[in-house]
Amino acid sequence: MTAPEVCFEDLPAGRRIALGAVVVDRDEMLAFNRRFDPQPFHVDEDAARASLFGGLCASGWFTASLWMRCYVDAVLSRSASMGSPGGDEIAWPAPVFAGDRLEAAMEIVAARVSASRPQLGLVTLTGTLTRADPGDGAGEDVVFRARFTGMFGRRDGAPASDPA
Amino acid sequence: MTAPEVCFEDLPAGRRIALGAVVVDRDEMLAFNRRFDPQPFHVDEDAARASLFGGLCASGWFTASLWMRCYVDAVLSRSASMGSPGGDEIAWPAPVFAGDRLEAAMEIVAARVSASRPQLGLVTLTGTLTRADPGDGAGEDVVFRARFTGMFGRRDGAPASDPA
Repeated sequence: MTAPEVCFEDLPAGRRIALGAVVVDRDEMLAFNRRFDPQPFHVDEDAARASLFGGLCASGWFTASLWMRCYVDAVLSRSASMGSPGGDEIAWPAPVFAGDRLEAAMEIVAARVSASRPQLGLVTLTGTLTRADPGDGAGEDVVFRARFTGMFGRRDGAPASDPA
Repeated sequence: MTAPEVCFEDLPAGRRIALGAVVVDRDEMLAFNRRFDPQPFHVDEDAARASLFGGLCASGWFTASLWMRCYVDAVLSRSASMGSPGGDEIAWPAPVFAGDRLEAAMEIVAARVSASRPQLGLVTLTGTLTRADPGDGAGEDVVFRARFTGMFGRRDGAPASDPA
């Protein structure tokens, strides 16, 4: 197994990373909505048109999952990631529709070594998905935002003794 | 279209609702992990065994999505739900494994009429998934917790005038 390229030391507060883009596939969105979030405005064309959203839109968990895949491909797949205990913000400020092109990004807001497990670094980041300006003057929209903490191994590995 | 059974008025602060249970299907978990969160400990048996988690575990977004389906089936499908702008907590306190039986629940922590759109009620709730005690003395585990706000129509419908 090769050493991970991205360790705690590579993820300092303030760093911004573009995570690529994704286009929302209608069939995949509908399959996800039907399985996990079959509310009328997610699965029924007529009900969606009559709803606040004005059309069939993505489950927020599908949107979150699309962001996650971008984050894995751009960062986590070559990192010392050890998962996440959670976070303190999740927001869906605008609905997401089939065909939307979303740009994924992240910005690190804090990074510190774990007090109880000094072989671990705790990286708090804000992830976003932003829909490009459709060209009708509406401007770009942040459609997903989440702030959470990821656990990452340190480049130098575990210290000789673990005080916790 | 029949009137929804569950409106803002039915969701007062303090109300707890059991949302049923779900068993984590291994094939579905792996398919989700591969598509949305292909980190080694989510998709590679050997890497997972060597990880902090000790075995292949669910993407946190799969766990969240399983909770969501329980919430839709038990409450939202017969409600005046109008979606969610987001929330201020999402937590994965313990890993979820294939075969786990998870009990879903929710508790309403606050409910108020929207100041800007008085035809809408804003209901803040904490959703949880809890794994039953496996019988080995480990006790039960909360494996997912999220606090967010849902928008619900009011039983009496929109007022004659909207001040916002």
